[in-house]
Amino acid sequence: MTRLNWGLIGGGEASQIGPAHRLGARLDGHFDLVAGALDHRPDAGRRFARELGIDEVRAYGDWREMLAGERERDDRVDLVTVATPNATHYEITRAFLEAGIHVLCEKPMTMNVDDGEHLVRVSRDTGAICAVNYGYSGYALVRQMRAMVTRGDLGRIRVVVAEFSHGHHADAADADNPRVRWRYDPAEAGASAQMADCGIHALHLVSFVTGREVHDLSADFASCIESRVLEDDAMVNFRLDGGTVGRLWTSSVAIGRQHGLTVQVFGEKGGLRWAQEQPNQLFWTPLGGRTQIIERGEAGLSADAERAGRVAIGHAEGMPVAFANIYVDLAEAIAARKAGRTVDPAACLFPTAEDGVRSVAAVHAAVASARDNGAWKDARPPMFKGA
Amino acid sequence: MTRLNWGLIGGGEASQIGPAHRLGARLDGHFDLVAGALDHRPDAGRRFARELGIDEVRAYGDWREMLAGERERDDRVDLVTVATPNATHYEITRAFLEAGIHVLCEKPMTMNVDDGEHLVRVSRDTGAICAVNYGYSGYALVRQMRAMVTRGDLGRIRVVVAEFSHGHHADAADADNPRVRWRYDPAEAGASAQMADCGIHALHLVSFVTGREVHDLSADFASCIESRVLEDDAMVNFRLDGGTVGRLWTSSVAIGRQHGLTVQVFGEKGGLRWAQEQPNQLFWTPLGGRTQIIERGEAGLSADAERAGRVAIGHAEGMPVAFANIYVDLAEAIAARKAGRTVDPAACLFPTAEDGVRSVAAVHAAVASARDNGAWKDARPPMFKGA
Amino acid sequence: MTRLNWGLIGGGEASQIGPAHRLGARLDGHFDLVAGALDHRPDAGRRFARELGIDEVRAYGDWREMLAGERERDDRVDLVTVATPNATHYEITRAFLEAGIHVLCEKPMTMNVDDGEHLVRVSRDTGAICAVNYGYSGYALVRQMRAMVTRGDLGRIRVVVAEFSHGHHADAADADNPRVRWRYDPAEAGASAQMADCGIHALHLVSFVTGREVHDLSADFASCIESRVLEDDAMVNFRLDGGTVGRLWTSSVAIGRQHGLTVQVFGEKGGLRWAQEQPNQLFWTPLGGRTQIIERGEAGLSADAERAGRVAIGHAEGMPVAFANIYVDLAEAIAARKAGRTVDPAACLFPTAEDGVRSVAAVHAAVASARDNGAWKDARPPMFKGA
Amino acid sequence: MTRLNWGLIGGGEASQIGPAHRLGARLDGHFDLVAGALDHRPDAGRRFARELGIDEVRAYGDWREMLAGERERDDRVDLVTVATPNATHYEITRAFLEAGIHVLCEKPMTMNVDDGEHLVRVSRDTGAICAVNYGYSGYALVRQMRAMVTRGDLGRIRVVVAEFSHGHHADAADADNPRVRWRYDPAEAGASAQMADCGIHALHLVSFVTGREVHDLSADFASCIESRVLEDDAMVNFRLDGGTVGRLWTSSVAIGRQHGLTVQVFGEKGGLRWAQEQPNQLFWTPLGGRTQIIERGEAGLSADAERAGRVAIGHAEGMPVAFANIYVDLAEAIAARKAGRTVDPAACLFPTAEDGVRSVAAVHAAVASARDNGAWKDARPPMFKGA
Repeated sequence: MTRLNWGLIGGGEASQIGPAHRLGARLDGHFDLVAGALDHRPDAGRRFARELGIDEVRAYGDWREMLAGERERDDRVDLVTVATPNATHYEITRAFLEAGIHVLCEKPMTMNVDDGEHLVRVSRDTGAICAVNYGYSGYALVRQMRAMVTRGDLGRIRVVVAEFSHGHHADAADADNPRVRWRYDPAEAGASAQMADCGIHALHLVSFVTGREVHDLSADFASCIESRVLEDDAMVNFRLDGGTVGRLWTSSVAIGRQHGLTVQVFGEKGGLRWAQEQPNQLFWTPLGGRTQIIERGEAGLSADAERAGRVAIGHAEGMPVAFANIYVDLAEAIAARKAGRTVDPAACLFPTAEDGVRSVAAVHAAVASARDNGAWKDARPPMFKGA
Repeated sequence: MTRLNWGLIGGGEASQIGPAHRLGARLDGHFDLVAGALDHRPDAGRRFARELGIDEVRAYGDWREMLAGERERDDRVDLVTVATPNATHYEITRAFLEAGIHVLCEKPMTMNVDDGEHLVRVSRDTGAICAVNYGYSGYALVRQMRAMVTRGDLGRIRVVVAEFSHGHHADAADADNPRVRWRYDPAEAGASAQMADCGIHALHLVSFVTGREVHDLSADFASCIESRVLEDDAMVNFRLDGGTVGRLWTSSVAIGRQHGLTVQVFGEKGGLRWAQEQPNQLFWTPLGGRTQIIERGEAGLSADAERAGRVAIGHAEGMPVAFANIYVDLAEAIAARKAGRTVDPAACLFPTAEDGVRSVAAVHAAVASARDNGAWKDARPPMFKGA
Repeated sequence: MTRLNWGLIGGGEASQIGPAHRLGARLDGHFDLVAGALDHRPDAGRRFARELGIDEVRAYGDWREMLAGERERDDRVDLVTVATPNATHYEITRAFLEAGIHVLCEKPMTMNVDDGEHLVRVSRDTGAICAVNYGYSGYALVRQMRAMVTRGDLGRIRVVVAEFSHGHHADAADADNPRVRWRYDPAEAGASAQMADCGIHALHLVSFVTGREVHDLSADFASCIESRVLEDDAMVNFRLDGGTVGRLWTSSVAIGRQHGLTVQVFGEKGGLRWAQEQPNQLFWTPLGGRTQIIERGEAGLSADAERAGRVAIGHAEGMPVAFANIYVDLAEAIAARKAGRTVDPAACLFPTAEDGVRSVAAVHAAVASARDNGAWKDARPPMFKGA
Repeated sequence: MTRLNWGLIGGGEASQIGPAHRLGARLDGHFDLVAGALDHRPDAGRRFARELGIDEVRAYGDWREMLAGERERDDRVDLVTVATPNATHYEITRAFLEAGIHVLCEKPMTMNVDDGEHLVRVSRDTGAICAVNYGYSGYALVRQMRAMVTRGDLGRIRVVVAEFSHGHHADAADADNPRVRWRYDPAEAGASAQMADCGIHALHLVSFVTGREVHDLSADFASCIESRVLEDDAMVNFRLDGGTVGRLWTSSVAIGRQHGLTVQVFGEKGGLRWAQEQPNQLFWTPLGGRTQIIERGEAGLSADAERAGRVAIGHAEGMPVAFANIYVDLAEAIAARKAGRTVDPAACLFPTAEDGVRSVAAVHAAVASARDNGAWKDARPPMFKGA
């Protein structure tokens, strides 16, 4: 079994996403957490690292110290996960890639398109993998959707409808709570709030499932709580390469929606519906036929979907397994490189810097469109416009 | 018990909507079908009328004959339902209103805004009721939503999200079937297909539930089957009076959706979700609380919602009852007028010509916006712009 | 269109089931309510009858008066619905049958098996139809289940699982409320409470769907509220003719279940699941295949199921339509007899006195078994034991 | 962070349950897999152990070799998981307990009640923990149910209804497949098939949630496929200590049910419903109130339920996390013993040998009752009858 050395940057004691990464990395036993710079307060980070069983000399005070320490070791980390505040992703990711260390970066990968394009180039130049944690793409039935679209079960895709709406920032009385406020403050969050936080996941899923990129878009943003500058509700109409029509609604004021990440794909020959809150069932309706319930774990799933499942049919699997699948894919790709083997690119399902910069570009195009009264904008990063 | 004389125009043997009107009108026993002009083929119409138990002299060959015959009778029809092809609604409705006969007109009420405004004026001038059959507003729990919004349970409404999407016109091989083709042909259907057919219902529900009208909008239309001129998939972003944000998706190529009419309302203090396919449950989430399932028939519903139910809690009710509720409301209003009583306008929940012209105006604004690349357009009929 | 004269006994102003019968009888226009004895208080009954539009001379003070009045008329009632307290069903039904008037009797048809067998014989001797209102058998998709079982889609039926559980009598503080108390008092309710009230419906559905009768059974009863003598929760294991295994749970203390009438049928070649709270979908899983959602109104349903639907696919239908289907079937059978036509018995889907006595016998067998510690008891009426 | 040495017996390459244990043990990083006897074929077991990263000297050929090897080591395994064929559980578990090594044993813990009682005594005498893997009790919302019952939210519990039904052994053509056949063959499976395989889980959940043990029961078994000796469908009526009524249906021929593990609890003051296929929602209905949806991860869950969750509200968690929670609880208990700390028994939620023998006794009582025509049988192990 592949065993690799893993380092974590950010994801300290109070972090929400840190535990999810540790679960995901550990679930299949491919990654040993051997190094970390877990907190912006060096002492807190070192103490928590030791609590997690990290050796004292590899419990670093910050990422620069970690980079300096690790790059010299023979047993240096094979993969670093970057789970720090958004504005720091670019600098940290770039530095580790330049040192030849593979990176899994939290989303959004960068705060602007230029930085994103730069990471694509650094990754290409150094050969270091730059992966981005669009973790929902790790769900078995999301991969089943992708396989069904790819092999043509739906025919040409006409319309894709995505949602990622919750109500967890709906309380006006809570809007000035610092834990919430920064998300809607351009000084801290950048150009976009809800699109950059949630919509970006749905956009990635759309491209992951259809195999097509967002070409252009028109957006309508709203800030439903007076003190907010950035959007807490957004609708984006878009077209994918090849003309597929796209609709995306994302909101953080939709009281009653807990985590409404849903993808519907409608093609000439059938329709698919999947929702993250019931991730072990996929609803498939062939043209002229009845809706069928595809169960995770059933016989005859695509190879990708089958591989992404762990337990028998009828047993629920959830987000920890989805995250773990990203780590499994990374482990395979890293192990192959270490062994000098070539990996079938089709088997590398983890999102890459290319995916990262595309969705950042789409978010920025949505911001521009919303400011321009919904005018349609090109959503592609400059480096892919010739494509 | 109120018993009134009822006439039906259109709704012949092959009609899909005719049986629904007959069920709805008959369910509570207020209306006796005593006259009809049921088919554009006079003989077929007369024969079918007699099959339905209509007296020979009131089994008319066409609506003009019916108008001439009825207006002279002492026991003339109290209400006429117009369920003919869309392009004829205006002329027929106007003629009966001018004769002082109340009308329930199928949607869309008219093919353009001018005609719609004219019907509003005729109705006002003659005192004859001009109702429009937005039948989904008859569901008990839709009325419960309206009551909850009105009495402030949700606080100020921030966002409304509506859907009306199905997949019944998704088959490209069937697109030239005359039964389907006319819907997407401007010569027969007018300026809009899917918006005028389905989206219009959802727009009405939004206004019915929130008590606010559509002010302006931006639309994105798509025709997913090559031979189609009119849209079969549309997304409309809108603002209601007072600034509520609106999103509406409607499609006829969404394979797997059977009749996806859904309304979600998000306010400062809570969120509501209702779907026509499961109409006897309403999902209510107060801010900071758990989602609660409101059951049709439970104790403590609003007076409107309680009155709209017929059978005990836990027993499903469906569209026939919703339609019947429109007829019940009409029966009350008509009986009151005959008796010289005043009706509390708040109790008159049936949609009127005002509602009819507003939604026609919104559909036409959506057409204009879609042609103009999504530019925002005023969605109000001219007669209500001063308001 | 068939139009018949209809009379109602019981179903007065405060009745819960009366409105459901009036809706059901009226929905398709086959029955005109022309006579009634609606209340055990003669004056109240006459007044309410006149409110419902019944002619003064046919607004009777009690059923005997009604029988005397109607039997002499040329335009006498074709069908009488008996919706009186349970203990009176037998006497009233017998009297009208003996007068040659068709009867639709509420369940339970009789308080004991002897009386039930007697009604079977009276109906056979007089030729008058004795139907029993197991109204849930009128749902389109229940009829679809029956058709699928009959034509062999499921192969031999192995196991049937039925439920009819609600929580509406769970409040101990409300147990002495007269509206509730009588149901659990043997002096008023007879030998059984929950089985006779709800379980009996589920037993009928099992036989309706499988085409097999209950042969023997073992029961476990519980009274969860101290003051109750009769059961408020029961489990019955049974065997159908031919050996199919049956399970039935029924409860009135299941807080949270609103009206949990559910039937599951498992055969050699597939399984079906239907629930009254979502009656427009039927879940069908062929052996080795995926679960499919059968929609009411879809193309290709059985003739019975198609005929039982009224509105287009995706539009909900509920209990009023199910009840109406019983009346439609009765109208056809009565009209055929009046016209001297023979009716295909397969088309007569309404439950008859035979069904009525069988389920009464099964309830009494369950009572005997529960008293005898769950010992297995023959569940058949004596008159059918030779069969 | 607690880190313990873990050994696995059984759970080889072809095992279905082995991967679930490895995921569960690894998820939170408390257990390092350091020793194993993974296959009844010694070479295959050793090879697979090394693939999993186990050191060569601790990759054992069988459990006796493993016991001999481990008992002498200073770094010997802290916990052994026994995931071998059922008939071997007793011997292996006893041997490790006698060596003072903690054990997590797969269910059923033993093949008969005597052996089960003996394991209870060995565990008490040696102080070694004997846990049993009723893994579904690890779900966060199952623990929430338990907490709500314990603190009295439901008042006295009246009725508990459990199901564990699937259709994966419904194919008669597959019944002689050795992979399926052994389960229904008393020579290999013992006295019971479906009850011992699935029903036993549901019985444990009932006791886990209510805090009450099964006192007596009546059972009805069926073998729906001719060649089967043991039951593939069973219904058990039971009473818990204190008189709560219980109903349990379990089946392996219920085509369409994937993994229908469901628990409903009805008390004086409310009802709860939870299903393993949608494990992140719990439906709670207070008496006289609306059904509320309790979400895993929401604020205000019981301490046990909160601790059992890993990711934010709205993100699905599944069986791997449930299993992991059993391991977390074991890690805490073992670490406390190693440190000489006392553990609050209320915090030890993992099922123990007492639980194991009680459910084995209930299964055997069900077998006896089914053979005796449903006669009620005492379901308690002799050692607990005085209690």
